[in-house]
Amino acid sequence: MSRPLRLLHIAAGEPSPRIWTERFHQELAGIGDLHLVTDGDSLPEEEQLRLIRGTEVLLIGWGSSLIPAEIARDPGDLRYVCNITGTVRPWVSLEMIEAGIPVTNWGDAPAHRLAEGAMVLLLAVLKDLHHQIMWVRGGGWRADARLYGGSLEGLRVGIYGLGVIGRCFVDLLRPFRAVMRFYDPYVSDYPADLERVGSLEDLFRGSEAIVIHAGLSDETRGSVTAGLLSLLPDHAVIVNTARGAIIDQEALFAELASGRLRAGLDVLEPDTLPEGHPARTWDNVILSAHQIGRNPPDYYQEPARLEDYHIICLENLGRYARGEALRFPMDRERYLRST
Amino acid sequence: MSRPLRLLHIAAGEPSPRIWTERFHQELAGIGDLHLVTDGDSLPEEEQLRLIRGTEVLLIGWGSSLIPAEIARDPGDLRYVCNITGTVRPWVSLEMIEAGIPVTNWGDAPAHRLAEGAMVLLLAVLKDLHHQIMWVRGGGWRADARLYGGSLEGLRVGIYGLGVIGRCFVDLLRPFRAVMRFYDPYVSDYPADLERVGSLEDLFRGSEAIVIHAGLSDETRGSVTAGLLSLLPDHAVIVNTARGAIIDQEALFAELASGRLRAGLDVLEPDTLPEGHPARTWDNVILSAHQIGRNPPDYYQEPARLEDYHIICLENLGRYARGEALRFPMDRERYLRST
Repeated sequence: MSRPLRLLHIAAGEPSPRIWTERFHQELAGIGDLHLVTDGDSLPEEEQLRLIRGTEVLLIGWGSSLIPAEIARDPGDLRYVCNITGTVRPWVSLEMIEAGIPVTNWGDAPAHRLAEGAMVLLLAVLKDLHHQIMWVRGGGWRADARLYGGSLEGLRVGIYGLGVIGRCFVDLLRPFRAVMRFYDPYVSDYPADLERVGSLEDLFRGSEAIVIHAGLSDETRGSVTAGLLSLLPDHAVIVNTARGAIIDQEALFAELASGRLRAGLDVLEPDTLPEGHPARTWDNVILSAHQIGRNPPDYYQEPARLEDYHIICLENLGRYARGEALRFPMDRERYLRST
Repeated sequence: MSRPLRLLHIAAGEPSPRIWTERFHQELAGIGDLHLVTDGDSLPEEEQLRLIRGTEVLLIGWGSSLIPAEIARDPGDLRYVCNITGTVRPWVSLEMIEAGIPVTNWGDAPAHRLAEGAMVLLLAVLKDLHHQIMWVRGGGWRADARLYGGSLEGLRVGIYGLGVIGRCFVDLLRPFRAVMRFYDPYVSDYPADLERVGSLEDLFRGSEAIVIHAGLSDETRGSVTAGLLSLLPDHAVIVNTARGAIIDQEALFAELASGRLRAGLDVLEPDTLPEGHPARTWDNVILSAHQIGRNPPDYYQEPARLEDYHIICLENLGRYARGEALRFPMDRERYLRST
């Protein structure tokens, strides 16, 4: 058995209940001694520095206090920063990465959840659920002529980006019998039931739904242009759970305002919408406000289960304790690419 | 090659565009000579009888004229009634079945579509899409405290009825990593990744979502009682795309009005709702008014494809022409059980 680790987490206020479940506490107790600090943001920075320099492993994630920049110059005893959930960037400075303190992120833990979110939006928009809901609320019932509907069966679904999330999405989509096509210039191997296309133009020209699973980069920013959108047939569906800036939002909103296209958008650019924005009332759009992956902490009946991110964190703590290579380590390039 | 069949379809008004696609016409042209009558309901019954007695095969389905009862007593040349879509019962009298005229229905053609509809409602309700939509329309954005959400991953999903549709549903649900359980006393073999439970009580007690895929019978009518519903945990989801009468609707509506449970209902009993009914405004319910399977005829880009029901119809016409046993034949028992 490995020696017990000194573990520290400083929550900005209350610790995130989605991370700090009873079951996770139990598992951590088998690995080391956890010092969990609440209301960390009200501590003087001196005290934060003292706590961090006095620990060996710092756990960060949703609801963490920011790590003071001074830690990069003088980490004290700190040997490893394990990010349990979310993006590393807000909590950890580039200087820390460059100082060579090992930092890991949650890797592919959110992939399944994001893929599920994309499936929900794709199905709900395809079935015109927003329109149907408003129709029923307004006193209508069956057979509004404006209700379009649709089925995934035989539908030509174009997947933009076949990374970890895109592949999870394909696994969820497969039994629905859609025609699956993808565009991703960086992929070499891919499932045999996918059709590969050579350009975004080809993807949009031959698809009735587009699902975006690309990361945000100089190459993808604004890459879904007015010209590409115009290649889609009427009633086609756009789903974006990746990043809002990948789409030319003005062009997409024009197609949605006219009623020609439909969309399910978990992300916008910027990632909010003014209170009186007309998009709020369009029946052909579902806006899930970056909440499609929302999952309450008290969801599961029994037994209290570990989330994927718990499992990855625990695995990395074990690897650290045994002196093995860590999974999902951050480096300068990954840090700058992370979103 | 078989001899060409004499085929007749009498549409009540306009022929259903979902059945009578160009591609289906092309396929039928290879099998026989189709006489397609529009505005059949405006024909004198004498003329209808003359047309039906003069054909060999009568094609019926969505949008058909009713078959006059006299045909059972004197079918003339009529040898086979092929129901392309929907339930046989409104169009064909029991007397016709008893007179021994072969009648076939669309078999398992709608199963995948219904399973898809159940998945849409399950996911949309689980994610509180109705609530989210109303929240955004009302000027809100992220993090309404009343938004609950949820994920299928690890969720205990209880399936009531594991017939053809229930099995299709399991195939769609499988990659979402739910815990799949079912109750169906008439099933002997079932997929190994399902947990079988011995009673509806056990199903409701151990599930966080219930999806109904049972047929309506004396046994299932009203079988989802107030007592069973009370066994579900808070925020649990009920999905019904089967028949409204399987649920004690008053009991379910009480649980929904209080906000304790959530539901996606494609069917009600009766299958409509008064204009001012409060259920229309509950944010924890999506009412899809028997339209969740809606799929417009001009949906697919290319090539014009055949639906499952087209394929079953064409296969049965081929079997008839070759004198082989028909698929999905109706008999008295099936007729009386059909809904």
